[in-house]
Formats: sequence, C-alpha cells, structure tokens
Amino acid sequence: MNPGDRVRVDSDDRTYEGVLLPSSTDDDLVVKLEGGYNVGIDREGSEIDVLAEDVYEIDGAQDGDEGEASTVEFDDDLPTISLISTGGTIASTVDYRTGAVTAQFDAEDVLRAVPDLAGRANYRGRVVANILSENMEPTIWQDLASAVYEEIEAGADGVVVMHGTDTMQYSASALAFMLETPVPIVFTGSQRSADRPSSDNVMNAVSAVEAAKSDCAEVLVCMHASDSDTTCALHRGTRVRKNHTSRRDAFETVGAEPLGTVDYESEDVTFRRAHRERDAVDLELSPDLETDVELVKFTPGMDPAFLEIAEGSAGLIVEGTGLGHVHTDLIPKIEELIEDGTTVVMTSQCLEGRVCDRVYDTGRDLLEAGVLEGEDTLPGTAKVKLMWALENSEDVDEAMGTSLAGEIQERSVPWE
Amino acid sequence: MNPGDRVRVDSDDRTYEGVLLPSSTDDDLVVKLEGGYNVGIDREGSEIDVLAEDVYEIDGAQDGDEGEASTVEFDDDLPTISLISTGGTIASTVDYRTGAVTAQFDAEDVLRAVPDLAGRANYRGRVVANILSENMEPTIWQDLASAVYEEIEAGADGVVVMHGTDTMQYSASALAFMLETPVPIVFTGSQRSADRPSSDNVMNAVSAVEAAKSDCAEVLVCMHASDSDTTCALHRGTRVRKNHTSRRDAFETVGAEPLGTVDYESEDVTFRRAHRERDAVDLELSPDLETDVELVKFTPGMDPAFLEIAEGSAGLIVEGTGLGHVHTDLIPKIEELIEDGTTVVMTSQCLEGRVCDRVYDTGRDLLEAGVLEGEDTLPGTAKVKLMWALENSEDVDEAMGTSLAGEIQERSVPWE
Repeated sequence: MNPGDRVRVDSDDRTYEGVLLPSSTDDDLVVKLEGGYNVGIDREGSEIDVLAEDVYEIDGAQDGDEGEASTVEFDDDLPTISLISTGGTIASTVDYRTGAVTAQFDAEDVLRAVPDLAGRANYRGRVVANILSENMEPTIWQDLASAVYEEIEAGADGVVVMHGTDTMQYSASALAFMLETPVPIVFTGSQRSADRPSSDNVMNAVSAVEAAKSDCAEVLVCMHASDSDTTCALHRGTRVRKNHTSRRDAFETVGAEPLGTVDYESEDVTFRRAHRERDAVDLELSPDLETDVELVKFTPGMDPAFLEIAEGSAGLIVEGTGLGHVHTDLIPKIEELIEDGTTVVMTSQCLEGRVCDRVYDTGRDLLEAGVLEGEDTLPGTAKVKLMWALENSEDVDEAMGTSLAGEIQERSVPWE
Repeated sequence: MNPGDRVRVDSDDRTYEGVLLPSSTDDDLVVKLEGGYNVGIDREGSEIDVLAEDVYEIDGAQDGDEGEASTVEFDDDLPTISLISTGGTIASTVDYRTGAVTAQFDAEDVLRAVPDLAGRANYRGRVVANILSENMEPTIWQDLASAVYEEIEAGADGVVVMHGTDTMQYSASALAFMLETPVPIVFTGSQRSADRPSSDNVMNAVSAVEAAKSDCAEVLVCMHASDSDTTCALHRGTRVRKNHTSRRDAFETVGAEPLGTVDYESEDVTFRRAHRERDAVDLELSPDLETDVELVKFTPGMDPAFLEIAEGSAGLIVEGTGLGHVHTDLIPKIEELIEDGTTVVMTSQCLEGRVCDRVYDTGRDLLEAGVLEGEDTLPGTAKVKLMWALENSEDVDEAMGTSLAGEIQERSVPWE
C-alpha cells in the first residue's frame, strides 16, 4: 500500500473509497475521495484494501492529465502564483489521536494534498508562520506583508495566503493597509479540517488560486459563498467578517454584496462591484505598525475605570452603541485620554451602518472631547487601520475619516 | 391657533399640512401629517395658517371616531396595556434649536402624540426613567423590572416599554432573566425622531400595543421588519441585536427568524415559531444583579495586561474569535482570574453559531483553565445573564450552559 494507490478503507463506523495520499503521521491515513475532499482516518482499527496501484502520480500531475510533466516544472503558458502559509486548518493534516489539528505546509505538500491545484498555475510556496490564527500578532502581519512583497517583486502574478479563519479578517485588513499591490492577494482558509467529508479546503484553495489569477489589485478573502460546493465569494479584505462560528459560508461582506464570485465548476471569476484592476498601482510596502492600540466594546454597566487600560496608549478604538455612543459618565475619561495624547476613534457594535455623532447630545459631547468618527469602518478593521495610520499617516485624524483601502464605503442613502 | 387645529406651516425650506399637536416647548410646533407621522418644526421663521379649527379632539379620541369617548375612560371590552417609558427617541419631542432630542412622556402625552393608539386598549402609563439609552444602567433595569411587575400584578394584560434603541437588546435581556411573566412585555423604540417624515415611532408604538395584547408570555422587541411601513418583527428579547446604526429595520434576531410579526394594516399578530403562551407561568420577580461583571472583546495584538481590568471581578465575558478562542498567551491570566474566583464565560464575536472549545488545542486549554462555554448566547446577553445568574442561580456553571429565557437556541444542525 503506497500513496497513489486506490484503496477502500473500512474504519470503525464507515467505509471510504479513494486515493491514498501521503500522511504526516503514522497514525492516520489520508484518502482523497471521489468528490475531491481529503479525509483523515484513524489507522488503528481500520481495514485497508488496495483496489489498484499507482492510479495517481503523487509528485504533482494528476492521473488523466495526459502525460503532463510534474507541476513543479515551470509552464510558460501559466501564471505564477505564490502560496504563502501562516498555518490554520487549511494547511493542516489530521492527528486523529487527540483530535487536534497540527499545521504543516510547503508548496509541494499543497500539491500533494490538493491535486486539483495542478495545471492552474506555476506555484511558488513559502511558510511565514505555523500558528492557529487566534495567535496571530502584528509582528507576523509584518513578516507576512514582507513575504508577499518579495513574492510579487519576484514576479508572482498573484498571491494566495493560507490562513486560519479566526483572525483572517484582521490579517487581510493589515495587509490591505501595509501593501499597495498591483496583483491580487487572496486570503483563504478552511472551516472544516480535511478529516471531515464536508471539508471546504479543496474548493477554497482552488477558488483562491483562480481569484489570484484574476484582474484585480486588492486584498481579498475567498471563502464558500453558501453551504453548497458551487461558488466562493470574493470579499474585500477590509469589509469582511467571520459571522458564524462553524458554517462553511461564515464569511460575509458587511453592508454590501461581496466584490465578486468564483464559480467552482467553470472556474469563472466574476466581479460584480467596482474594484481596483490589475496593475493599477505600483507595488509598495509600508510595514510599520504602532502596536499600542486597544479596542474596548462598550456595554451597559461598564465601569469608567475600565478605560484606564488605555492610559498612555497611542490609540483606542471604542465599539459604541448605535450611532456611536457610550454612557456619558465615560466621556470625561475619554477626554482625559485624548488630552494625554491617545487617539480615540468611535465605531459601532451594530457593525452595519455609519457612525454619526452629530445627532444626539452624547455624540456631540464625544466629538467635543476630540473623538474621531470611524464612519462605517468595522471595529476590528479600525483597530488595524489605527495601528497603521499612527506610523504612516501625516494626519491621523484625516486618515481615519478617509477610505484608504475600501474600509469606508460610500453612502448608499443620504441619511446613512 | 390651538392644538387640534388643521394648519399649514411654511417653514424655511418646505410646507407642512396637518393637525397641530401640543408641544413641550414654545420654540417648536409639532404637526401630525396625513401619513400619521409627527413632524417638529422650528416656530421661528415659520408662517402658520389655520385651515380649520378643532378638527381633532386632543383629549384622546381621533376625529372621525364616531363620537367615541375620551380614551382615558375605561372600556370594559378592551384589554389594559401599561405603557412604561424609559426615555429615548420614541418618547421624545423635538427641540429644533439645538437639534437635540429631549425625552418627555406620560400616558396622556402618548395618546396626544400618537392618536392612532386610541381605541386599541385601556392605557396605564408611567415613567421609570428619562434617559438616552446609552446611559442605561443595571439599577434602572431593576426599577424597570419592578415597575413592570407592579403593572402586571395590578392587572395589565400586557406591557409596552418605550426604550432608546442603543441598548434596547441589553434591557430586554435583563427583563427576560429578572421576570417570569404571564403576559407579553414588549420593548419598542424609534430609529428616527418624530421630526422626520420617515419616523417609525407611530407604527412601532401601535404594533407594540398589538403585540402586548397577543397570546404570548415572553419579553419581546417590536421594531420595523423592513424599511417600509408594512410589518413589524417580534424578536425574542434575548436573541435580538441592533445590527444597523440608522435603518428603521436595524433590529434582527440572530441565527433564526423572528418569533413573529405584526401586520400594520390588518393589526394581525402572527407567531411563526414556538413561544411561551399567555398565562403559561406565574408572575415572578428576581431583581438581584451582580454588577461587577466585565465584557472583553479579544482582538489580535491585545496585551495580556488588558485582562487585569477583570481582577477581583465576579464575572467576565470574553468575546473570543471563531469557535471561542483567544491568543494562547492570555490563557494563564484567564486561569489566574478563575482561580481567584471570577466566573469566565466564552462567547464568540462571530455572533452567529455556537461556541465549541473541544475542537482545537486553544479551546481545550481554555476549558481546562475553567472557562465556561456560552453556547450560542450573544455576548451582550451573556453579560446580562451572568450578572443575573451570579445572584440568582444555585449553580452558575450549569445556568450559563442552560437556556433560561430562550438565549440558547437548539442546535439546528448536528455540527453546530
């Protein structure tokens, strides 16, 4: 029994049939099922029958690719896509013993795990980090931005960033502010690990590569558009949000339709909204970040002492209620922070709609105290933006009210 | 010129025609337009023509009500609804000078301002607070719960709570935990003040009264279901969220359809999902709250020192990423808090979907540290619930994992 063989595996509770893939551990088998998904199966207690040997050439080319050379050979007719991994479910193999997910990835691994990527592009691969994305940090954003910069400078026609889904929206925002890019930078991930028949890793990776080849020069997030395996949505990195803990279509563009879609079957990438087109700007990297920025979500009953955590900080994002409010007892403390040099930006926990602090007394008091309005910038995006603006913008106040990377949307209706 | 006269008002920029209503200030006129909306107009610079005198009997009955007696007289055939105001836009009149909204309300005021309420019920009215809802506090929740309790005990067949929209979801949750109610307790408010032709105050108030008469024994939020004036949605108080800063249909039930609807034209109240029916439980008030509970939203780059604000607190709600994660560097501090007696509950900033800390290492470490899973309880609701549970539940850990007032939904799919 070798990788590349067609096998039938009888495990404790069911039977799988497919192609055996290389596994990173001795404890589990990874089998590519007919539908394209890879499933991890505990080797212990499984009975394995080899149905046919070597049906699949594991070094890259898929059986049936009509003798095409290994995909690691360069094809002049194909664009070059850089695959960059930061870890997370999509770049993971399964350790069935503990149920845990261990991250492990290089470009060749991806071609082995996702043979469907073959023939679509020449690939370059690199690992920037190997973390679950809840452990993402500003320094890794900087490493990631530098790696993406280098890949594009070296000729990549597009970049796919494999990333855990927990903090993908924050990292996508960070890159959107740190990089001016002439090519697509496409984040993708997986909500279900490869050990589950419902895994979304193959379709998301394939769709992300197609998006990375498209006529776009923005930071995008490419994830399932619905719970079925037909279409991925392309979200602007600064406007996307993980809105469900577990669904495959957890990611949504807030307050608008996604920029576009990738049809899985036809491979068509369609943009439905205005976006920056390929080569519209020159490549530029501005990686400096002020990391001393806090985010505070206001809720009723919050003690004004809570804001002491922001004392001496360079920046504070407040996630207020409604149009951008907090309890009026908090305003003197906010004013004090501002007088001491902290930049304070108001956003709304409503998520949709625009902050407007000119309607009610509370808002006007906040403006008088020196609070900046974040417009309709999402709170998390506002935090990343402020970290960036404090190091890179000559006029931070103006920058926070200006759309730098699509994070502020045009008013759709006059009263917004 | 007297309240009740039909007038035409030429103000600086436009002309209004309607019935003059009483105004709380000398500076502005309040005119009820044909469509039912009340508009506030700056008296200064306005030219007023009286078109007809006394077309409207201001003491309650609307002109055309066929000689019906004043609505303040008791009608045996109608249910009794208590209107309780806490302030906010719905209970406000307009001060055009500053653009500010000043709250002012008693039951008779409401009948004057919203004549459409006449004939639907006998009304009792009381003011519990007169605040913009961002200033709502746990002590006012206790006053409000006591007032509602007294009203129901005195025979009210339903209660309507007029409330600012900013923190309505938190107050509705608070009452849902503090009160067992045999009748509907319906929160309503207004996203647009009465000075705007697009105000939603009349339709929301009327629909809330209809909902308060319905066959339900839960705490509901009644607000516009769409941007048109056809239907109000009835949301379960513990599952509702203000999801837009300014739209009239800002309120949404998270992760499910609303419980029901009120059709504005037909006045039909329709429940589409299972709910507790009228008189299913006896009236009971449990108003004690532990106010020393904090909520922290985790974002990348958060300093572990941030959690020091929860030191010595009775409770802490963490709004984590994805299935319920934070940076692993924060876990030792969380463990320390728990060892020192703080109850820590994990929720998700995704808002939709369920927390599950058994899938990934980070989650398992959090569970081992003693963190409780908030299931799919919304973070704001979880904060209110923990404040209540710490004072009223014998087993707080068990209470946080059990649906006490519909705040935890049944799993819709096995993997949720």
